[in-house]
Amino acid sequence: MFAIVMAGGSGTRLWPLSRRETPKQLLALIGETSLLQQTVARIGSLLKPQDIFVITSQAHVRATRDQLPQLPEENVLGEPLARSTAVAAGLATVLARRESDEVAIVLPADHFVADDAAFADALREAARTAERGYLVALGVVPTHAATGYGYVKAGEPLHEASSAAIVERFVEKPDASAAREILAGGRAFWNAGIFVWRVYAFRQAVERFQPELASALERIGEIHRTPGWMSRVRDILEPIPAITIDVGLAEPAAADGRMAVVPLEAGWSDIGSWSALLEALSSAKGADLVASGRHLDRGSHRVLVHGGDRLIVTVGLEDVIIVDTPDALLVCSRDRAEEIKPVLDEIARTAGERYL
Amino acid sequence: MFAIVMAGGSGTRLWPLSRRETPKQLLALIGETSLLQQTVARIGSLLKPQDIFVITSQAHVRATRDQLPQLPEENVLGEPLARSTAVAAGLATVLARRESDEVAIVLPADHFVADDAAFADALREAARTAERGYLVALGVVPTHAATGYGYVKAGEPLHEASSAAIVERFVEKPDASAAREILAGGRAFWNAGIFVWRVYAFRQAVERFQPELASALERIGEIHRTPGWMSRVRDILEPIPAITIDVGLAEPAAADGRMAVVPLEAGWSDIGSWSALLEALSSAKGADLVASGRHLDRGSHRVLVHGGDRLIVTVGLEDVIIVDTPDALLVCSRDRAEEIKPVLDEIARTAGERYL
Repeated sequence: MFAIVMAGGSGTRLWPLSRRETPKQLLALIGETSLLQQTVARIGSLLKPQDIFVITSQAHVRATRDQLPQLPEENVLGEPLARSTAVAAGLATVLARRESDEVAIVLPADHFVADDAAFADALREAARTAERGYLVALGVVPTHAATGYGYVKAGEPLHEASSAAIVERFVEKPDASAAREILAGGRAFWNAGIFVWRVYAFRQAVERFQPELASALERIGEIHRTPGWMSRVRDILEPIPAITIDVGLAEPAAADGRMAVVPLEAGWSDIGSWSALLEALSSAKGADLVASGRHLDRGSHRVLVHGGDRLIVTVGLEDVIIVDTPDALLVCSRDRAEEIKPVLDEIARTAGERYL
Repeated sequence: MFAIVMAGGSGTRLWPLSRRETPKQLLALIGETSLLQQTVARIGSLLKPQDIFVITSQAHVRATRDQLPQLPEENVLGEPLARSTAVAAGLATVLARRESDEVAIVLPADHFVADDAAFADALREAARTAERGYLVALGVVPTHAATGYGYVKAGEPLHEASSAAIVERFVEKPDASAAREILAGGRAFWNAGIFVWRVYAFRQAVERFQPELASALERIGEIHRTPGWMSRVRDILEPIPAITIDVGLAEPAAADGRMAVVPLEAGWSDIGSWSALLEALSSAKGADLVASGRHLDRGSHRVLVHGGDRLIVTVGLEDVIIVDTPDALLVCSRDRAEEIKPVLDEIARTAGERYL
C-alpha cells in the first residue's frame, strides 16, 4: 500500500494568509504544524515514509521537502503544470512506479481531521474494499445540509461485515433545498475527495473513461528519468485538459457499478474557506471565538481572529473573520467568506499582483 | 475679541489612532489637516493669529506649535497639570493677559464642524450677546435624541432681533427615554462645550462659584513670568480639584439667570467616538462606507475603515469600525464603540502601557 498526497492546491479562498508562494497546505492553520505535515503524519500510522508520495507544483517542491524531512526527497514529485486531480494522480502513479496490484490512497494535502484513529480505520476499510477491485471514495457522514460539498449517494451495502456500500451516484454541490432533499433521502455522504484503489483498477478506469490521459501517462512512463524527460512531460501534458477525479473517473465508474463508498466520521473539514476553518476550530475548542496571536476581546461571538505580532482588539463583533498579515488585512462577514475569490481578481487589477 | 482653544484632551475613545503621544486633536481624522488645525482655521475668519491662544498639556506644547506655525509661539500655553476645562480656561485667561472687557471664545480643539460660515455666524451672535454681560453657550440644534451629549434647555428669547435665549437649565447626558422627553419639550440643544463671555463676566463667575480657583488664578497672575514661576503654578494648581465649565460655572450661572444660549446649526460633532466619526463622515460624504488608506470593499454598509499603507479588504460587513495602525488593530461593532475605554484598562494591564 502507498499514498499519493495531492498538494497542488492554491488555496486562494484563504487569502491573505494563503498566497501563491505559500498555498494553504503549507500553512499552520490549526495547531503548530501545517495541514500538509498533519496529513502526512495522519497516514504515518498506516504507511512507512518511503510509501508516502507527495505531488505538488514544481514551484513548491522545495518548501514541501523542507516541511517533510522524514520523506525520501524523491518522494516529493513536481508537476510541470497543473491539470487537476485525475491528471496529478495519474502522473504520481507513473512516477511512483509501484506494483499494479498495490493499493493507492489518494488524498488532498490540505484537509483537517479531528480524529486520526477513526480516519485510519476508514482507510483500512477502504483498502479492504479496494482489494476487491472497487474504486473507493471516503464519504463523510454529513452534520448538516452543506452546500459547499458534493455528495455521494450510496446504494446497497457491499456485504454484511463491511460499512462499504456501492455508490449509486455523485451529486455536484447542491443548493440549500437540494442539499436538504439529499439528506432526507438517507445514505448520503459528503464527497471528501479521498480515494482508495488498486493501481490496476485506476489504470483501467483511466483507459476506459480518459483514453487521451491514459496514452499520455503511458508515454511518460516510457521516458521516465531519461535525459531531459521533465520538459517532455510538460509537452505531453500541455494538450490534456484539466480532469478531476470526481467528474472524470468517479462519476462514470459509479455509473458502471465499480465505485464504492466507505463512511468517514472523524471531524473532517476541507477548510475550504475561513468560515469552514472557524467551524472546525470552534468545534475542536468548544468556543465560538477562536483567536491566534496577540489578541484582546470584549463580548464577540462566532469570530475568527488570525493574527500575529500586532495587537488586535475586537469589541462586540458577531460572525466576523479577521485575518491579519504583514502587508494585508481581511475583515469579512462569516457567511460571505466564499466571496474572497472574486475579490482577489479585483485586488490583482487594482492593488497589484504582489498581494496574491 | 480673542479665543482660547482647549487642547488638553487625551481622546482615549479614538484608540488605537489616538495615543498619549498623539491625542485626538493632533490627528487628521477628517480631511488632510488635524482637528486642531481645522479649529484654528475655522476661527481664523473672525480673529487674527495673535488673538488665538491654545492651551494644552506641557507634553504636547511642541507638537501643537509645530502644527500651528501661523500662531506666535507664546500663544501656545502649556498646562503644568490637567484640572479640566474651568481651570484650563482660567489659567489661559490669566496667561493671555487680555483686557477685562474683551470677549473670549472658549472652544475645544477636537470638534468637527461641516459649515464654517454658519459656525462663524453663531460665534458673532454669541459675541454680541456676551457683550451684554451674559455667559453664552453655543447650543447645537439636535438631529436626534442623542444620549452621548448633555443638553441645554432654553427659556425666553433675549430680544426679538437675536436668536439668543436665556438658559433655563443644563441637563447632563440623559438616557434614551429622557433624551426623547427633552426633545419633545422643545427649545432643547446639545451642549457643545463652546462658550463665549467677557473676561470680567467670567472672572465674576469664577469668584462667585469657584472662589478657591479664583484666588489660585489671582496668585498665578501675580507671579506670571517671574523666575521659576511655572513650577510654582504647578504647586498652586495641585490642590485645586478638576472643575468643568459645564458643572462648575455654567450650571450655577444658569440658576442665577446669567447664562444665555445661541443656536448652532453647522454640522457639528464632538467626534467623541469612532461611531461619531463614522456618522460625521457619512453625512459629509453622503456614503455609508467611509474609508481611508489602501482599501477594497465588496458589499459592506455602515462601515468605517481607517487605514494606512497596508491593503485592507472588507467583505459583506455591516456596522463595523476598523482602525489599522502599525502596532495595533481595532475591529469594533459600531454600536459598541463606547466600550473602548474599559478595554484600554485591560490593554494596559495585559498587553502593556506601550499601546496607550
